[in-house]
Amino acid sequence: MNNVIINDRFWSGKQKLLVSTLIPYQYSALNDEIVGVEPSHAIENFKIAAGLSKDKFYGCIFQDSDVGKWIEAASYALSIKKDKKLESKIDKIVSYMQLAQQEDGYLNTYYICHPEIKRFSNIVHGHELYCAGHLLQGAIAYYKVSKKDKMLNILKKYIDLIIKTFGNNDNQIKASPGHPEIEIALMELYELSKEKKYLDLTNFFISVRGEKPNWFESEEAFINAEKRYFDLSYNQAHKSIYEQEIADGHAVRALYLSAGAAALAKESNNTKLYEVLKNNFNNTINKRMYITSAFGSQGYAERFTVDYDLPSDRAYAETCASIAMIFFAQKMFEIQPLHIYSEVIEKALYNTVLAGLSLDGTKFFYVNPLKVIPIVSKYRQDMSFIQVRRQAWFGCACCPPNIARILGSLNKYIYVVKDDIYINLLIASTYNFNNNQIKLKCSIPNSKSISLTILKAMREKIYLRIPKWVDKVIVKKDEHISYYQDKDYLCLYDIKDKANIVLCFSFTPKIIYSNSRVSNEVALSYGPFIYALEEVDNVSDLSSLMIDIRKKIKIKKEKELNGYVSLIAEGFIKTNNELYSYHKPQLTKTILKFIPYHLWANRDEGEMSVFVNYK
Amino acid sequence: MNNVIINDRFWSGKQKLLVSTLIPYQYSALNDEIVGVEPSHAIENFKIAAGLSKDKFYGCIFQDSDVGKWIEAASYALSIKKDKKLESKIDKIVSYMQLAQQEDGYLNTYYICHPEIKRFSNIVHGHELYCAGHLLQGAIAYYKVSKKDKMLNILKKYIDLIIKTFGNNDNQIKASPGHPEIEIALMELYELSKEKKYLDLTNFFISVRGEKPNWFESEEAFINAEKRYFDLSYNQAHKSIYEQEIADGHAVRALYLSAGAAALAKESNNTKLYEVLKNNFNNTINKRMYITSAFGSQGYAERFTVDYDLPSDRAYAETCASIAMIFFAQKMFEIQPLHIYSEVIEKALYNTVLAGLSLDGTKFFYVNPLKVIPIVSKYRQDMSFIQVRRQAWFGCACCPPNIARILGSLNKYIYVVKDDIYINLLIASTYNFNNNQIKLKCSIPNSKSISLTILKAMREKIYLRIPKWVDKVIVKKDEHISYYQDKDYLCLYDIKDKANIVLCFSFTPKIIYSNSRVSNEVALSYGPFIYALEEVDNVSDLSSLMIDIRKKIKIKKEKELNGYVSLIAEGFIKTNNELYSYHKPQLTKTILKFIPYHLWANRDEGEMSVFVNYK
Repeated sequence: MNNVIINDRFWSGKQKLLVSTLIPYQYSALNDEIVGVEPSHAIENFKIAAGLSKDKFYGCIFQDSDVGKWIEAASYALSIKKDKKLESKIDKIVSYMQLAQQEDGYLNTYYICHPEIKRFSNIVHGHELYCAGHLLQGAIAYYKVSKKDKMLNILKKYIDLIIKTFGNNDNQIKASPGHPEIEIALMELYELSKEKKYLDLTNFFISVRGEKPNWFESEEAFINAEKRYFDLSYNQAHKSIYEQEIADGHAVRALYLSAGAAALAKESNNTKLYEVLKNNFNNTINKRMYITSAFGSQGYAERFTVDYDLPSDRAYAETCASIAMIFFAQKMFEIQPLHIYSEVIEKALYNTVLAGLSLDGTKFFYVNPLKVIPIVSKYRQDMSFIQVRRQAWFGCACCPPNIARILGSLNKYIYVVKDDIYINLLIASTYNFNNNQIKLKCSIPNSKSISLTILKAMREKIYLRIPKWVDKVIVKKDEHISYYQDKDYLCLYDIKDKANIVLCFSFTPKIIYSNSRVSNEVALSYGPFIYALEEVDNVSDLSSLMIDIRKKIKIKKEKELNGYVSLIAEGFIKTNNELYSYHKPQLTKTILKFIPYHLWANRDEGEMSVFVNYK
Repeated sequence: MNNVIINDRFWSGKQKLLVSTLIPYQYSALNDEIVGVEPSHAIENFKIAAGLSKDKFYGCIFQDSDVGKWIEAASYALSIKKDKKLESKIDKIVSYMQLAQQEDGYLNTYYICHPEIKRFSNIVHGHELYCAGHLLQGAIAYYKVSKKDKMLNILKKYIDLIIKTFGNNDNQIKASPGHPEIEIALMELYELSKEKKYLDLTNFFISVRGEKPNWFESEEAFINAEKRYFDLSYNQAHKSIYEQEIADGHAVRALYLSAGAAALAKESNNTKLYEVLKNNFNNTINKRMYITSAFGSQGYAERFTVDYDLPSDRAYAETCASIAMIFFAQKMFEIQPLHIYSEVIEKALYNTVLAGLSLDGTKFFYVNPLKVIPIVSKYRQDMSFIQVRRQAWFGCACCPPNIARILGSLNKYIYVVKDDIYINLLIASTYNFNNNQIKLKCSIPNSKSISLTILKAMREKIYLRIPKWVDKVIVKKDEHISYYQDKDYLCLYDIKDKANIVLCFSFTPKIIYSNSRVSNEVALSYGPFIYALEEVDNVSDLSSLMIDIRKKIKIKKEKELNGYVSLIAEGFIKTNNELYSYHKPQLTKTILKFIPYHLWANRDEGEMSVFVNYK
């Protein structure tokens, strides 16, 4: 866990924010100490289930998952910076879990606090397996960082009960999880323990999808649900995993499932499953992905809709869905190191995931629209899920701890070891392995210079990913190392002691054209960042702006918002006072200023748009 | 009523359709004889209330209104073509009404059939006044055409009860109608009878708006309603009529109210009220009107939203709202003959109202979107109100009989007599008045030639409106008449016996630019018609098309769809196979074919768009 140390101007700041703010803030939130927000009660629920509190369960049916995710994120924070007090906070929660756990291993505070509701009677919407998955991931991460196995053992006991409960036998429940997630966790447990039973359960959960008749159809919660959007596809149970050709249904569910299935394909060397997932991945990113690597086009049922239906102003684009896609793409890369997987990870990370978090680390976006006109989105019923400002917390608080998880585990995504070593993200860091060390120095987008130093000779190659936004790679210095460049990578080989290569990733602002079904306007990017117009930098009506794409777009280093690079473009402002007119609108020259999308809504409330009209 | 005889190639066909198809079809619908559609039960409800049927009330709380509207439309049909059988059908219904009417005059089948529900206890949503208004309008129209006063007397008795029930006295209900409509009907009754009590009641209904506390706030139906969209503005009861600066709330309610208020302003010479309504009219058409003269931007609560929020794909644009606007604008013109009122009437009539009706007269649009991608609108929850095909009937069937009413009463809108005579619509017709006769010959858009013949000398002037889509007026022949032209009218004066003027309204296809908040694309029009692209004439993905506005748009007379003029434009098709790309899409030359908007969805199902990208 500690073999990659991040030392990056941009990302180290985010990790410091994780340690200093996100983890303590979210702990306070889970303990209902944040004033003026929907209480979480998540930790209190464990105390109630443990018999330590007389209070009543409160919160969503899946409230336990927030605790699992927070423990996982806190464990990552501990790997970045030791903190005994934080450890003892986790230990305290674990002690509640121990007391709450039922004799047979069962552990879910909602059901323990509601003995009148039958356990495992609502697989489709009951979230027991989902919560188990998140608790298990927390247990694994905490075990890895602390070597304490109490929580892990609690969860293993619970998983044993789940193994007994679910399966193909007559007395077992033959259902897939209503909200996939546990598959990812089980595969982590398998990777840790190599115990086959965890692989088998995952395999069952993945393979049972598409069974006819479907278990869910016998459950009241499914029968009573509105079938238009809460059909079997909502839970990805409508088809066999081998027939699921594109992400469908609830966006986070779909992408968690794919992440779990990819982990299974990897560990079980299931090439057929991998190929199916690869096709699903490609279809999804080519037909159902927002330009910010965000997913889910409909607020109602938080769903995928139909191909190319990607409205900017009603994007659901849940932060969690982009995080789920990162999990999925990463596992896919671990199976087959394709450039496209890393591209999507990078785009999701630098845009939607970061947009989910305020600069001060205490406010969050759940939904990430690509266009906002506050007066409209605040009014319209079909935009009721759009927030124009980040929120301090949510009744359903899945996104904040998910952002914390990803910030804490960033090191996983930089280096991937297959036969060779792949460097996928340009995050300055040191990778220690087998008594060797790779040092990556860079500071994108402030500097275009990149330096790689390898301590000792190695026979493996290093593949440095060349992002698609790089125009040209210029090698400035190479010592004790050879290299060649293909379209996706700079391949370093014949690496000797104290090898070093210094190069420049030359890149410029890019104009991005969309499929016309998505937009007939353009978006800008610079490096890994997608850009956006904000009212505060421009005019109050962003729709009146046009960028002149014939003119060069300038970059400017800005000091505000912790420092960023803005894009300054020439363009026009349209004047059309009439609602409809036979007269072509007058164009007046103006300057457009774009900021990285993830920074939007950190200043005055106003319009925002990723896409802009062009001439 | 019969002093204007329409003899127009285009509109006479529509009026024949009214007589031959709409009236009998809708009679069948009201008698539940149309197979496969939601039954109406509206006439059966009257039989039940009359004690002639043991059946149970069925349908909406405002089901009676459909009968009133149908009788009104059928009366107009009788004025076009006498039909004893049709008259006897109406007489039969009137006989049910007579039996159903309560001793004190009350007449509403929903409440008569539900004695457990207190009359006039739910003014906000109960629709008793709305139904009374529509029945009264039916009674007046039937009296005018048949001279039979039975229905009129029934309604007068009911109105007397309403006069007793509503007002400022302590024992009276101090509320405005929850759904304005009766105001229009009462003013028609006042115009017919000149009895002041009807004017007074209208004045009360108009003036009581904005009273604090508001009567509605004491009603359960209001208290229990969702306040986000069903607030007092939904019923236009949030402000005094004098403070209502723009149409707000439920679109049809808002525009019916304005129509009633304008009639009141006219009959009571209330200049202050007129000025307020004029300001409201101008704000509404300049900030909240679709290019097709349609109104209402949100499906949920069928509401106006905020200024410039006019999405094409989620336009509610109810057919009834455009009809309500025609009523409003017409009354405003009768007060002050301004060109703009007639422009809006023309646009609403030739576009949204006509779009509401299939060519065969048996299918109807309630909602009139300006852009449809069937796969998307059929899927998305926020487009659940969009239909891609006209429907045979509706559970709430307000629009079909409203279309019939307007087609039957078209003659009202051609000639308006103030001190002088205004000709507002270019519909070939003969206007007989005071032993004189004006004959208007034209056939827009097939011919640009217009001829006006006046039988006898007259001292009034005739103002022939020059629509804004006319580029140039060329007078070809003038005999026994003088004329001059200002920016809005061709004024004919010094009219002698057998005066005649022949002229040409020269016009070409027009490109319409919208305020950028509405669209950065263009729309086309030709004559009074707004045009649209349909998939069947073009490509399957209309968003990939661009019109080349530098090239001349050609017109072509087409034979299909009963004959129409299509617009043929040069343009491009964009090819961008990738979802997002750094490469500018390739443009390939293509031809775009546009049809009049009102004709859409009369052929194969497919995409439709009023707006198109341009170069």
